[in-house]
Amino acid sequence: MSQPMRPLSVDLNSDMGEAFGAYRMGDDAAILDIVSSANVACGFHGGDPDVMAGTFTLALEKGVAIGAHPGYRDLWGFGRRVLPHTAAEIERLVAYQIGAAQALATYAGHRITFVKAHGALGNLTQSDPEVAGAVTRAIRAVDPSLVCLAIALGHQDRLAREAGMSVKSEIFADRAYTEEGLLVSRKLPGAVIHDPGVAADRVVRMVRAGAIETISGTMLPTPVDSVCVHSDTPTAVRIAASVRQKLEADGVAVRAFAPAP
Amino acid sequence: MSQPMRPLSVDLNSDMGEAFGAYRMGDDAAILDIVSSANVACGFHGGDPDVMAGTFTLALEKGVAIGAHPGYRDLWGFGRRVLPHTAAEIERLVAYQIGAAQALATYAGHRITFVKAHGALGNLTQSDPEVAGAVTRAIRAVDPSLVCLAIALGHQDRLAREAGMSVKSEIFADRAYTEEGLLVSRKLPGAVIHDPGVAADRVVRMVRAGAIETISGTMLPTPVDSVCVHSDTPTAVRIAASVRQKLEADGVAVRAFAPAP
Amino acid sequence: MSQPMRPLSVDLNSDMGEAFGAYRMGDDAAILDIVSSANVACGFHGGDPDVMAGTFTLALEKGVAIGAHPGYRDLWGFGRRVLPHTAAEIERLVAYQIGAAQALATYAGHRITFVKAHGALGNLTQSDPEVAGAVTRAIRAVDPSLVCLAIALGHQDRLAREAGMSVKSEIFADRAYTEEGLLVSRKLPGAVIHDPGVAADRVVRMVRAGAIETISGTMLPTPVDSVCVHSDTPTAVRIAASVRQKLEADGVAVRAFAPAP
Amino acid sequence: MSQPMRPLSVDLNSDMGEAFGAYRMGDDAAILDIVSSANVACGFHGGDPDVMAGTFTLALEKGVAIGAHPGYRDLWGFGRRVLPHTAAEIERLVAYQIGAAQALATYAGHRITFVKAHGALGNLTQSDPEVAGAVTRAIRAVDPSLVCLAIALGHQDRLAREAGMSVKSEIFADRAYTEEGLLVSRKLPGAVIHDPGVAADRVVRMVRAGAIETISGTMLPTPVDSVCVHSDTPTAVRIAASVRQKLEADGVAVRAFAPAP
Repeated sequence: MSQPMRPLSVDLNSDMGEAFGAYRMGDDAAILDIVSSANVACGFHGGDPDVMAGTFTLALEKGVAIGAHPGYRDLWGFGRRVLPHTAAEIERLVAYQIGAAQALATYAGHRITFVKAHGALGNLTQSDPEVAGAVTRAIRAVDPSLVCLAIALGHQDRLAREAGMSVKSEIFADRAYTEEGLLVSRKLPGAVIHDPGVAADRVVRMVRAGAIETISGTMLPTPVDSVCVHSDTPTAVRIAASVRQKLEADGVAVRAFAPAP
Repeated sequence: MSQPMRPLSVDLNSDMGEAFGAYRMGDDAAILDIVSSANVACGFHGGDPDVMAGTFTLALEKGVAIGAHPGYRDLWGFGRRVLPHTAAEIERLVAYQIGAAQALATYAGHRITFVKAHGALGNLTQSDPEVAGAVTRAIRAVDPSLVCLAIALGHQDRLAREAGMSVKSEIFADRAYTEEGLLVSRKLPGAVIHDPGVAADRVVRMVRAGAIETISGTMLPTPVDSVCVHSDTPTAVRIAASVRQKLEADGVAVRAFAPAP
Repeated sequence: MSQPMRPLSVDLNSDMGEAFGAYRMGDDAAILDIVSSANVACGFHGGDPDVMAGTFTLALEKGVAIGAHPGYRDLWGFGRRVLPHTAAEIERLVAYQIGAAQALATYAGHRITFVKAHGALGNLTQSDPEVAGAVTRAIRAVDPSLVCLAIALGHQDRLAREAGMSVKSEIFADRAYTEEGLLVSRKLPGAVIHDPGVAADRVVRMVRAGAIETISGTMLPTPVDSVCVHSDTPTAVRIAASVRQKLEADGVAVRAFAPAP
Repeated sequence: MSQPMRPLSVDLNSDMGEAFGAYRMGDDAAILDIVSSANVACGFHGGDPDVMAGTFTLALEKGVAIGAHPGYRDLWGFGRRVLPHTAAEIERLVAYQIGAAQALATYAGHRITFVKAHGALGNLTQSDPEVAGAVTRAIRAVDPSLVCLAIALGHQDRLAREAGMSVKSEIFADRAYTEEGLLVSRKLPGAVIHDPGVAADRVVRMVRAGAIETISGTMLPTPVDSVCVHSDTPTAVRIAASVRQKLEADGVAVRAFAPAP
């Protein structure tokens, strides 16, 4: 009896371009050597036009695909706080940021091929259908050829598919999942996986199985098109490198789901 | 002997969409009934995603062409102060704002067809070849089909033509010109024309002549594709209406130079 | 049988100094001719150092007492949105704004004598004991001689009294009250009183009675030290003038509860 | 023949509290173990209310004096760009920041005893008498008991003394001086001294001599009350430690010029 033929490739994505003026954030150059897709901040929760252009240029040099990574207009809170907004306001702040990223990508000779919502906004695209719908509508209105990079099993994943858009589903390398496929709250023990080897082995299992592995070990089937690794924690580079190495050792190529043409 | 056949049409443009959150600025709805092109703030010196989308929607309803109106990132100074920036920084902040405007225009069902730099940045595109070049390169890099709306006889007007871009030249309805074709400093008497009738008659003369009329009455030949009227002064609506009425009475139609297709 | 001897004076307060750079807000000069206390924005939800200094100078000329009016750091939302903050963060952003206002008042030759929280932050000082406590602790930590201007019957009113601070209780001239003494939601009919005469008569009844009049007509006893009138609505000046005129006609002087020495 | 009795103590100051939200800047805790005075950013070019309060608390624990460190409202440019402002605007933005710092210092149980202008604003207090006067007037207006920490031989140093204020003069540990006592432009070779030992020896000479040592070796007499060491360069901690160690080895105690009472 044959094993199911699981994907020969998967994408690795990471948040990038979060510096602002004189303020640094993360080691983008090191992470860009590891990932295949960069989610680039668009100036609302982090980033500025110079950081964006510089990140796009570096990604181009390293052959990394780029996505717009819109967030709340909250530099102080780094986009990690839920700000009160109507769905229409969210549509517009997402559309604005996508356009800004597209223009600077073109300026840098690269091209935005996907969109992933950042931080608190991103979390709501998983858990809140109204926000998920707003982000999805914004992407489609600005450019329906853009791929939605959505949290696996979340509302945006479902809504964007229903809307006929191109959707890729992502899992997190270092975050534990509940039985419902949600992220375990960071306030609970075990929510974050700090050991690079543990994180990498788990990623390989999830990619191979096409499923999310919950904290109890249950596997929840889902497409697994991309694996999100962090760029701004002390262990970020080591976890990312470990995930890539173990995937490749297991015969899974790391490859962007939406490379620029 | 026949009169020269001067243009049968000219564009009227005005700055728009400069509100921010709860703060209002100008009477956009009234001005949109008069002008043929709206220069829409892009969130750096004024405007926000909601104001931008709302302005684009209103312009679409009223058949008014829209342009991106990038300025310095200086909400407090309303883009009227020269901020220290390298040419590369200017390229990027202009590219960013053009992209944001394009995306929100698309979102609103309209389309950006031109770019005009705002305030202190706009003044430097006239007087400073380095800034003029930076703004021009940004426009071309983002979308070479965009029209440059440039101050007549200024550096951007010349540089953008040399670069083979589509350029339209604008004059100001209510600002006096020096013998060199520069704006008379607001600190000097007579710099601003407050009488709607005087402003309108002078515009008709300039449009008919294809020339800038200096404070001494000299006519400096230039294409006159567009006339800029203000939106944020107490007499703005009256001057704009008077200019349009006198142009039309003189047989010159008011028509956008770059209508959305 | 004699009528109870009710106050011979009451304060009228209004929000002020909410302009920002080139953006105007409200008709401060007109309102300063009517009120006895000005709650001056401190640069977070509105205002800037120049607006603050200018407002303090004008208030001094007109003999109007001044208070710091701290709000959330949310210029776009004008302080009307609840932003996610810990109590400790609220203490610090309130302390910061009080200090800034004190320094600019001193600079202008005036003096801050009270503090009133703005907008969404102010509403939470009524309804949320944690926020009420944070604002109260900030005031006491910075300068315990400052008077807390608190919403009558709210948590800050109670907590600040329990802490032994000087507290003055305010009612709103144009907002309807629930049976619990809370403001009726603006989404409900009758929440805002638009008729200047109706508003003024109601204020006189509440000041005379020393009680809040609920939407059903019940009187909830409370100190009534100050009456808040708006400055930023179309009818603001007329309501404020009507309230003052009817109070004075009824023998109640309008006088600051905390004049600068 | 006896040597002149040169100071038994000098102050070491450093910029601090420049983080913003999630963005870090410098290693404040390490520097606070070395310096005697901390110039704390006030939220305009860096810092926020939480960072300020935290820095004041840490300085108190370590026995370090604190000063307000006002800069231009330019988070993106980190206060290093000259922004266009009138003298009156500078007075007000400095006054605002001093007050905010005083309030948060009081909140933290510490006390602001001096003021030093930051970055581009600080440089202008040396070279531009109008800016020097504006900053000096702001300090005096807000609290005349505050000490002006001024660049030795600069305009503010002179103007503040003429105004009868308490002034302390500072030199830079790692910056070369021209024959006029100005800082050598960073664009020129030798402008910045990178070797901790070289920097420290030079500081000892200047402190001992009561003079600025120019790039040619000339000594320009001036009070030398404080030595500025950086906190945000890779070698910052090593230079600061070396300066302190060599001063103490030479018998010069490191002591704040204006300790909190």
